[in-house]
Amino acid sequence: MIYINSKNRLSDVSDWFKDLKNSICKEFESIEQEFAEKYPGKAPGSFKTRTWNYDQGSGGGEINLMNGRVFEKVGVVISTITDGKFTPELRDKIPGTENKDGFQSCGISLVAHMHSPLVPAVHMNTRFIKTEKEWFGGGADLNPAEENPDDTNFFHNNLKEMCDLYDKNYYPKFKSWCDEYFLIKHRNEPRGVGGIFYDYLDTSNFEKKFNFTQDVGKTFLKTYSAIVRKHMNKQWTEEQKKVQLLKRGRYAEFNLLYDRGTKFGLLSGGNTDAIFISMPPMASWE
Amino acid sequence: MIYINSKNRLSDVSDWFKDLKNSICKEFESIEQEFAEKYPGKAPGSFKTRTWNYDQGSGGGEINLMNGRVFEKVGVVISTITDGKFTPELRDKIPGTENKDGFQSCGISLVAHMHSPLVPAVHMNTRFIKTEKEWFGGGADLNPAEENPDDTNFFHNNLKEMCDLYDKNYYPKFKSWCDEYFLIKHRNEPRGVGGIFYDYLDTSNFEKKFNFTQDVGKTFLKTYSAIVRKHMNKQWTEEQKKVQLLKRGRYAEFNLLYDRGTKFGLLSGGNTDAIFISMPPMASWE
Repeated sequence: MIYINSKNRLSDVSDWFKDLKNSICKEFESIEQEFAEKYPGKAPGSFKTRTWNYDQGSGGGEINLMNGRVFEKVGVVISTITDGKFTPELRDKIPGTENKDGFQSCGISLVAHMHSPLVPAVHMNTRFIKTEKEWFGGGADLNPAEENPDDTNFFHNNLKEMCDLYDKNYYPKFKSWCDEYFLIKHRNEPRGVGGIFYDYLDTSNFEKKFNFTQDVGKTFLKTYSAIVRKHMNKQWTEEQKKVQLLKRGRYAEFNLLYDRGTKFGLLSGGNTDAIFISMPPMASWE
Repeated sequence: MIYINSKNRLSDVSDWFKDLKNSICKEFESIEQEFAEKYPGKAPGSFKTRTWNYDQGSGGGEINLMNGRVFEKVGVVISTITDGKFTPELRDKIPGTENKDGFQSCGISLVAHMHSPLVPAVHMNTRFIKTEKEWFGGGADLNPAEENPDDTNFFHNNLKEMCDLYDKNYYPKFKSWCDEYFLIKHRNEPRGVGGIFYDYLDTSNFEKKFNFTQDVGKTFLKTYSAIVRKHMNKQWTEEQKKVQLLKRGRYAEFNLLYDRGTKFGLLSGGNTDAIFISMPPMASWE
């Protein structure tokens, strides 16, 4: 499908995010079907969809949530805001808002928390924002309970190969940005094993930047699905599950204390359900 | 014991907090002993103590933690800072810091998360802070999974009776303050069923204010212990446990997003273990 077919970039990008959401949901539901029955009586999961409305202007989106037998909780949220307004507190931090407090945006955001502590949790987000400037942002990062170096390398290598097709500086820059962004400062501890994070990717070459954003989504889906299939049928121990729950406690700390998406959402009157969809289904603290 | 026996108010108040900590730990360990054996092989809990040092000056304290069979996780933290310094960010918000950024403080803070969803979680804190001004602050609030009106009334009535001995305005003022403070703003939902919250209680009559602070601690201990004993041996359902875990997710949200103690601690370089002792042992999100 060709997405650059109208004069309205917002609707072009928004169409891509909807298609990506459909591909992701389909693939994750297939994984639920393929899973060797380990939870007798537990049927393969499927996504449930709710819509949500943006209260502060025009727009809204979808929350797609699956509580399955492989995916303990996976949320895929899409949003398209055709007429948004920044609060004064946020506006100061956003480029292109000197003359106007309005914005348009669309995005997709995904967090998966898995039953098996051997399958890493994952986060992916890509977005397109228009003020008097316009730019893409996003990224993907892997959050295992305990690091498996093979997974880390596979995840990073796939992202690097894809990034290199566009710009040799992308991967090193976006990897460092990810490490910096996902540091749990008060513990001086990384949230996971990283990935890429980018923002303010201007649209001087719209087609290229849009293609890159599409490839982030596609690479994420291909890479993460392979990691899930590799580990999902392995046995795990109680001890490994404990480690996973503690790691999820750290994940919750990061999201509530530092995550810009959470703060952006709460400050801009976003939908609480959509914002908190990233929270782990169960987490523990020592 | 008479606590006003020296010219050093900080050490007098600090002595009381240590004694209160000892009384609480003793009482909670008795409750662990009295509990009818419901977890075969699970021995009554007892407190484990670690010390912690304040890195930004002189001072430190104790973390007392018990993971028992009634108390799933209870932390009692005491601290005495004899030479502290506020960061610029914090200093602006603290009275009596116009000329000096130094402070002295002592305090006790307690959070209990219980195995049984029929026994409410609880939070209590009292503190004494000296800048160029000096004041007491603190409070106690009850956090049941599902409200039990008898417990709510018993908790509030005991606090009200005690408050009324000092000032008829205390209870209504401190109750409202508590309701306001423990509101989870983004959900417009109270964290629990309230109690009292007070701050900047000046020491124009030191003895009276110190006595009041002692009575907050004593009333908390007497009242909460009675509530625990009333419910701890009752059967609960899986459904009630689920409700408790979700309620704890809300508790975690409040602490990480709004709690002044958490923010104060993280911003002032406090001890991460001491700050996060309030987090639930296990929590869930839908």
